[in-house]
Amino acid sequence: MTHTTRADCEALDRDDPLASLRAQFTIPPGLIYLDGNSLGVMPTAAPARVAQVVQQEWGQGLIRSWNSAGWMSLSQRVGDKIARLVGAGPGELVVADSTSVNLFKVISAALGLARDGNTDGSAQAGADGGAAISRHAASTRRVIVSERSNFPTDLYIAQSLAQQHGCTLELLQAEDIPARLSSERGQDVALLTLTHINYRTGQMHDMAGLTALAHAAGALTVWDLAHSAGALPVDLHGAGADFAVGCGYKYLNGGPGAPAFVWAHPRHVDRAWQPLAGWIGHAAPFEFTPDYQPAPGITRYLCGTPPVLSLAALECGVDTLLAAEPLGGMAALRHKSLALTRLFAELLQARCAGHGLRLVSPTEDALRGSQVCLARDDGAYAIVQALIERGVIGDFRAPDVLRFGFTPLYIGFAEVWDAVEHLRQVLDSGVWREARFQQRQQVT
Amino acid sequence: MTHTTRADCEALDRDDPLASLRAQFTIPPGLIYLDGNSLGVMPTAAPARVAQVVQQEWGQGLIRSWNSAGWMSLSQRVGDKIARLVGAGPGELVVADSTSVNLFKVISAALGLARDGNTDGSAQAGADGGAAISRHAASTRRVIVSERSNFPTDLYIAQSLAQQHGCTLELLQAEDIPARLSSERGQDVALLTLTHINYRTGQMHDMAGLTALAHAAGALTVWDLAHSAGALPVDLHGAGADFAVGCGYKYLNGGPGAPAFVWAHPRHVDRAWQPLAGWIGHAAPFEFTPDYQPAPGITRYLCGTPPVLSLAALECGVDTLLAAEPLGGMAALRHKSLALTRLFAELLQARCAGHGLRLVSPTEDALRGSQVCLARDDGAYAIVQALIERGVIGDFRAPDVLRFGFTPLYIGFAEVWDAVEHLRQVLDSGVWREARFQQRQQVT
Repeated sequence: MTHTTRADCEALDRDDPLASLRAQFTIPPGLIYLDGNSLGVMPTAAPARVAQVVQQEWGQGLIRSWNSAGWMSLSQRVGDKIARLVGAGPGELVVADSTSVNLFKVISAALGLARDGNTDGSAQAGADGGAAISRHAASTRRVIVSERSNFPTDLYIAQSLAQQHGCTLELLQAEDIPARLSSERGQDVALLTLTHINYRTGQMHDMAGLTALAHAAGALTVWDLAHSAGALPVDLHGAGADFAVGCGYKYLNGGPGAPAFVWAHPRHVDRAWQPLAGWIGHAAPFEFTPDYQPAPGITRYLCGTPPVLSLAALECGVDTLLAAEPLGGMAALRHKSLALTRLFAELLQARCAGHGLRLVSPTEDALRGSQVCLARDDGAYAIVQALIERGVIGDFRAPDVLRFGFTPLYIGFAEVWDAVEHLRQVLDSGVWREARFQQRQQVT
Repeated sequence: MTHTTRADCEALDRDDPLASLRAQFTIPPGLIYLDGNSLGVMPTAAPARVAQVVQQEWGQGLIRSWNSAGWMSLSQRVGDKIARLVGAGPGELVVADSTSVNLFKVISAALGLARDGNTDGSAQAGADGGAAISRHAASTRRVIVSERSNFPTDLYIAQSLAQQHGCTLELLQAEDIPARLSSERGQDVALLTLTHINYRTGQMHDMAGLTALAHAAGALTVWDLAHSAGALPVDLHGAGADFAVGCGYKYLNGGPGAPAFVWAHPRHVDRAWQPLAGWIGHAAPFEFTPDYQPAPGITRYLCGTPPVLSLAALECGVDTLLAAEPLGGMAALRHKSLALTRLFAELLQARCAGHGLRLVSPTEDALRGSQVCLARDDGAYAIVQALIERGVIGDFRAPDVLRFGFTPLYIGFAEVWDAVEHLRQVLDSGVWREARFQQRQQVT
């Protein structure tokens, strides 16, 4: 095997058909930012757009901007754009709240349907809300299945709803999930809820395959697209998925704490009830009627008034992905993403061997998201800090993971080479053992 | 009675000890903005602060800003500032989510406590979550009391939770609430939930008196401060309130869809369980443990990652109110607010009589918030639109209400005079009957 050189990487950058997309972003000079899976970089268009919302739409338009500046339909407009990235149709997806809050909505909705045995969308609408919980109590479907190493908020929200509904949250290793959904063992499962790409390992679940198994068992699925929307092609309709949520501030480049999104398959959307019955999800919010009547379609997954400034920034981020459509869109981005992560893993093996790093992410392309995670028995936190000091931004995930995200929109091949070279130097020098790198701070 | 003239109003403005506070805001020239109860005007500091967050903290600091720019504690920092406006202590209040989502949290928490008979804060913590719902089923406290004309989202969320918990939502006229909480009739009441100042009438509830009645009946209280926080003094501790939520984009001037706030009395906060168990409310979010362990104190009312851009703008808005502290703070603002609303009502009577307008808001100062609402059998929507065309911004609330909010931070007495003069001209001329004013649009 011939070793890849930095010159080879530079050549890859020159030949990269997506290289022009990086010009959409403002990236601090010299920074190698491998943390777009935690907070995407700033689209260059964002400051002017946010300033326009603040100074013109809020400052001058004031309350009139709900109509004149389109704030009323912003959640739907940005939702329609995200839908194009995840294989959903127009009008099927809205931006709202946080991923956690949206998980609460869709897990509630899915549990209600599954425990009523209404999983194929054929039954009549049952929008009677929580009366459902007591009725569901008779159901023998009492298990929510998830992955033990799923992102905590997914587990916490599922745990909370399991307790409320008298269900059990069963946490499995990824490889044990298919058997749990088999015809022999799956009859008590109401819901499978997974993050499509695991945040700690970068391992991708087979959305279509697991959804088919869940459906065959009579269960429904909730997919968290936090690490896949904007990172690789997602085909919610193609996979037959039931419900999905996702994050605005990672690969969608929406800015810190950008609002999240939520999707329900059209076969379920008007049949399922979600408990966060806020006024913006009402069929006629400005009639101010005392009884809740959910809006038709996905709008019923809205709850309160949306944070317009953050939502406007999110639209700038989503637009950077739509700009890739003429260049091949998510398929082309995925092609580059795999090349980046393959290169990183290859260079690690060639240049950083013998330092106790273990590759946590799958080597097989079809199983790997857009990140590469490493583990080390000790020092993972300190090594990440030492890299950050050198301007190579990855992140640490407790207890032992070094995580590097490769956003194909703006990361280049020479940057991958440089990142590995920095890591090699940090490891060879032992600098990470210095006290200043040991002090833990919280980072999100 | 001698009639107030515009010159009298100009004199009131000259003598207004709070007049200097208006300089904190950018207000479109010539606009008379009587809608700060729907969306507060833009603090002049907001564009630069938001630009700093976008360009420096996000654009340059990127993920590091969670620590270096203080994003991790922003919800608490802004919460502590709001606490000073509503009679809460430091560390007791956080900014999070929307008012609707926060209502879901506190009504859930309060129902759990009340149905367990744990209303005085003396019982042990019962953080077992939803297991509670089935245990509560044995409780005879099954009624949530609210006001029929409460803001819809308050009613929708209460209705949703009532259904889930097997409770009943009982909607009363304001004057019938005390009797419902009496020792004879209140024994089945779990919770009283009210918006402190009614959005359609501007009528203020007696927070301390109703809370005392609720407590005597063994029930708890949830107060929505949407139209009182930043509008007048609120004393949550003095009133003995149990839980409260409030809105960031009205009198707190936080910008469109600014995040909301949530407060729980310290006697309840560690004992109550709220179901939106997201990772940011965990005791140790960066340990990434699979089991939810709520953070001590009010932090457990956080759920997902907060929308940082919107949160930063909210801080600018809250700061405009804290700037009044050396001038007498909320008490001084209340004094001016009452003078403004008294003047408006007086001028209406003197100059707009005979046009079928009825005063909906209380004439008694102690019962009136910072708004004046009128009703008219027909044409309320069109009259509001005709005023907007003239640059006098109030709003319409279905079915028949013209609503005018008077934010004492930036509204002057001559503006009140001018607003009434515009209204008189619209009414006298009949211009509002023209077709262009009839077409309804949604406004929030």
